[in-house]
Amino acid sequence: MSKKLKGIGASAGIAIGKGFRLENPDLTVERKSVENIEAELDLFNNALETSKGELEVIKEKTRKELGEEHAEIFAAHLLVLSDPELVDTIRQKVKEESVNVAYALKEVADQFISMFESMDNEYMKERAADIRDVSQRVLAHILGKQIVSLAEIDEEVIIIGEDLTPSDTAQLNKNFVQGFVTDIGGRTSHSAIMARSMEIPAVVGTKTVTETVEQNELVIVDGIDGNVIINPTDAELDSYKKKQADYEEQKKVWAKLVNEKTVTKDGHHVELAANIGTPNDIEGVLNNGAEGVGLYRTEFIYMGRNDLPTEEEQFTAYKKVVEAMEGKPVVIRTLDIGGDKELPYLDLPKELNPFLGFRAIRLCLEKDDMFRTQLRALLRASAYGNLKIMFPMIATIDEFRQGKQILEEERASLEKQGVETNKDMEIGIMVEIPSTAVLADQFAKEVDFFSIGTNDLIQYTMAADRMNEKVSYLYQPYNPAILRLVKMVIDASHREGKWTGMCGEMAGDEVAIPLLLGLGLDEFSMSATSVLPARTQLANLTRVEAEKIALKALTMNTSEEVQELVKQSFF
Amino acid sequence: MSKKLKGIGASAGIAIGKGFRLENPDLTVERKSVENIEAELDLFNNALETSKGELEVIKEKTRKELGEEHAEIFAAHLLVLSDPELVDTIRQKVKEESVNVAYALKEVADQFISMFESMDNEYMKERAADIRDVSQRVLAHILGKQIVSLAEIDEEVIIIGEDLTPSDTAQLNKNFVQGFVTDIGGRTSHSAIMARSMEIPAVVGTKTVTETVEQNELVIVDGIDGNVIINPTDAELDSYKKKQADYEEQKKVWAKLVNEKTVTKDGHHVELAANIGTPNDIEGVLNNGAEGVGLYRTEFIYMGRNDLPTEEEQFTAYKKVVEAMEGKPVVIRTLDIGGDKELPYLDLPKELNPFLGFRAIRLCLEKDDMFRTQLRALLRASAYGNLKIMFPMIATIDEFRQGKQILEEERASLEKQGVETNKDMEIGIMVEIPSTAVLADQFAKEVDFFSIGTNDLIQYTMAADRMNEKVSYLYQPYNPAILRLVKMVIDASHREGKWTGMCGEMAGDEVAIPLLLGLGLDEFSMSATSVLPARTQLANLTRVEAEKIALKALTMNTSEEVQELVKQSFF
Repeated sequence: MSKKLKGIGASAGIAIGKGFRLENPDLTVERKSVENIEAELDLFNNALETSKGELEVIKEKTRKELGEEHAEIFAAHLLVLSDPELVDTIRQKVKEESVNVAYALKEVADQFISMFESMDNEYMKERAADIRDVSQRVLAHILGKQIVSLAEIDEEVIIIGEDLTPSDTAQLNKNFVQGFVTDIGGRTSHSAIMARSMEIPAVVGTKTVTETVEQNELVIVDGIDGNVIINPTDAELDSYKKKQADYEEQKKVWAKLVNEKTVTKDGHHVELAANIGTPNDIEGVLNNGAEGVGLYRTEFIYMGRNDLPTEEEQFTAYKKVVEAMEGKPVVIRTLDIGGDKELPYLDLPKELNPFLGFRAIRLCLEKDDMFRTQLRALLRASAYGNLKIMFPMIATIDEFRQGKQILEEERASLEKQGVETNKDMEIGIMVEIPSTAVLADQFAKEVDFFSIGTNDLIQYTMAADRMNEKVSYLYQPYNPAILRLVKMVIDASHREGKWTGMCGEMAGDEVAIPLLLGLGLDEFSMSATSVLPARTQLANLTRVEAEKIALKALTMNTSEEVQELVKQSFF
Repeated sequence: MSKKLKGIGASAGIAIGKGFRLENPDLTVERKSVENIEAELDLFNNALETSKGELEVIKEKTRKELGEEHAEIFAAHLLVLSDPELVDTIRQKVKEESVNVAYALKEVADQFISMFESMDNEYMKERAADIRDVSQRVLAHILGKQIVSLAEIDEEVIIIGEDLTPSDTAQLNKNFVQGFVTDIGGRTSHSAIMARSMEIPAVVGTKTVTETVEQNELVIVDGIDGNVIINPTDAELDSYKKKQADYEEQKKVWAKLVNEKTVTKDGHHVELAANIGTPNDIEGVLNNGAEGVGLYRTEFIYMGRNDLPTEEEQFTAYKKVVEAMEGKPVVIRTLDIGGDKELPYLDLPKELNPFLGFRAIRLCLEKDDMFRTQLRALLRASAYGNLKIMFPMIATIDEFRQGKQILEEERASLEKQGVETNKDMEIGIMVEIPSTAVLADQFAKEVDFFSIGTNDLIQYTMAADRMNEKVSYLYQPYNPAILRLVKMVIDASHREGKWTGMCGEMAGDEVAIPLLLGLGLDEFSMSATSVLPARTQLANLTRVEAEKIALKALTMNTSEEVQELVKQSFF
């Protein structure tokens, strides 16, 4: 009899292979008195250096295979190993207490971990995960234990683990690792994002896969529907082999559209763009046939470092992206920091409700210098391609006017210095705050375009923190109230001859796509790997039919009714 | 030369009198070794008993003069003095360390205070303030020091202090205390709310009044415009005496309308209701001529205690209110707990963004038992007057349907037992979440009425925590986006023959009133003391003119433009 588990499909595709249980070595340590302090410190230094060497290798490999954004994690790990607060405290403990370094490391690391974990802040919690990951590596070297090296797997397997650490995922060899299944995690957890980037099928959040799968047992991973079949029957195996073949076939169909425009069955063209975090992501954007970059999140340039990036560093990054896109549109969002995204060196105030706090444009308008540096870099890069700027978290027309005025001041100052900028560059805003959607007709007279950020727009419109499980039932992209706000924005832009895009998760969602087409959305920006499926879906829709259904959806009562309507009409 | 300070007008009116500096006795203590432990413990017990006696007196006085809600604070203080964690720790410290009790008390209290203050939570911070207030009282008794007794002031004075503690405000004798001025605080701080209840002019948040005013210096408090004049010139004195006389005259004009309906110059009737927290507030409601209770916040029944209130306790409170209102409408809101309002005995999860979290109806639908108890009490009370129920924080139609279904189940169960309920009782919702305003036309088919809660609606629509100073500039009641949402709600209700009220602070605001009249608001619910000024203002407006201006406001760009429009049109 086969066993079945249900989890969250984190990366599409079907994988079939032997389960490989990811088991960590026993790293328990005891306190021992030592006489030769120097020997302990040498042991520590060697373990540190070995770990740093390994991390440099992993970081480079990650940068090449997955891009800058993913490599940042290992830059953060290297920073941990150079942090005197951690490293010197360990050395001191060894000296003062004449204790073995393995014990000192464990004690000090645990203190830091529990301190960071107790902070009610996602950023700090990630720091705790970093310290855990990196201190285990050093401890293994001190104890002479082998860390399971995923890089050395040389047969086709499905990885089974409680969760995959960033180091784990970075080492996965795509030639042998067919897929993975974990106990914990969700669609936006680190390992899920990595799986999608690497295009390895994955199911996360099964809760019990590590208790269920034996070493070498046959496992089917269905990353499309979130199913895991352990020890499948012949019938199941046949059925999933067929599903796998169908999916491969499907991918070939998608691939044919890589150089095509996105056109509906009745000849209506929309633009499919991709969201990126760093210049290295451009390769994936082009490989997946995106018609532009709909959202370049500039936060990554500011993260994993100890000070603000210079104008030159930023200019180089922005220029690289617009040049690589060869005249295709690139929408760059100015810094959206604060809320759940912190920069330690900015020393932002701790807030009771960070999602309703001092972030993004609110912060930039106050920290004027930082904002001007970014705008100068953007203005300079605008001469090298089709760059458009957008401001995040705009709530009032005043904020937009202030942001635009600062931009124009910097443009004037650059021109005075003889630096070229694109005078026709479009300046738009994110629509992610309800007030801005409601007042879109007034905004449309002043902005060049809108880009709807659905993650935040839904969260504020429903007054429900999207990270809070107790109210996650209120994260409803298909709620008629959300659709009405989207329509207000699109209609307002069209009346003024402007355009509207969407760069939240909703833009790549197969239930949302027909609705958004029907409401008249001009640009859909999503993760690069969703572009070809979306293009295929749109090629099979007609604008006329989509409009009929979308208008009907606006008159419904609940999210469930809308979902039902779309499914009955189009699936 | 006179000196002038600008602060926040916390309670309207003009007071002129000698400054009385509120100076606290020197309560510094030193650590001393003691031999007679028993004598120290006796000293402590006596100080505790004396303090409890004083607090009982203050609590009763407060209950009589200001009502239950205000007296709760002293119930909380009494709880502190009975808390074994605090009191026994002090006794133990005296015994174990053979130390003087004054020192032990100071040490232990400071520990508790800094612990509570470090918690990023308004409720806990208030606990810190309670412990500080009450431990100073006990310490003064131990040290044989006199606490400045505001109750004993026997000449007309203006109180000058850094801030007034709850004990301070409760002791103010209205016959002698003409007004007060503080360094810190805002319009919604405890002392400001108390000042309005007591109708004493007050200016808070001047930052420097304690540095500026000498004992017995002449002070003018202008609680209308937030001005403080110290050592005024004759001309200033004359001018403010005139302003004072005008204000008294104004109050007489207002008083004439106490038994009148609220009617505009062109004969349009609206309802002016009051917001209350406890049955004791009804006296103020009737004295100020309110036509109903537009919001009865039931949270106070649940606060300052160690367990949930019984059905009987709640029934008694609700019945008292509806009976006292003699057939006038009483809108009772079901429990709105969570967010910044916690109940320690419910053990709610700590949240990263409590304002976007698990609160109000979200909590009630899950903690079904607690909700059913309240609904049974409300249903039973409905037989005794004109009671209407409303649910807070409704975001989706599903939530309303679930709430209503539970209500109907309880009604059926009561009827089975032969208990009478009002079958025609109206069931409405608070509109304080953007999704509900946007979907008001669909809601209007199912609810009996809407009540717009502007404090939250503004906060969510602008995505700005109204308690966070860094983004307080976004708390914009006159933003055209807010006015449009208000209009959507009102229009939707009228199309279905239903009515819309408003129970946020905006309903009593003199700039908002003409706009709300123009948008067609049916019921304005505000603090009782605002009812007569609002009735006077409305009697001088015409519905026709207000409508013209309100429609114009909807087409403006910014909050400032709307404010300017209203001021030019009506002031």
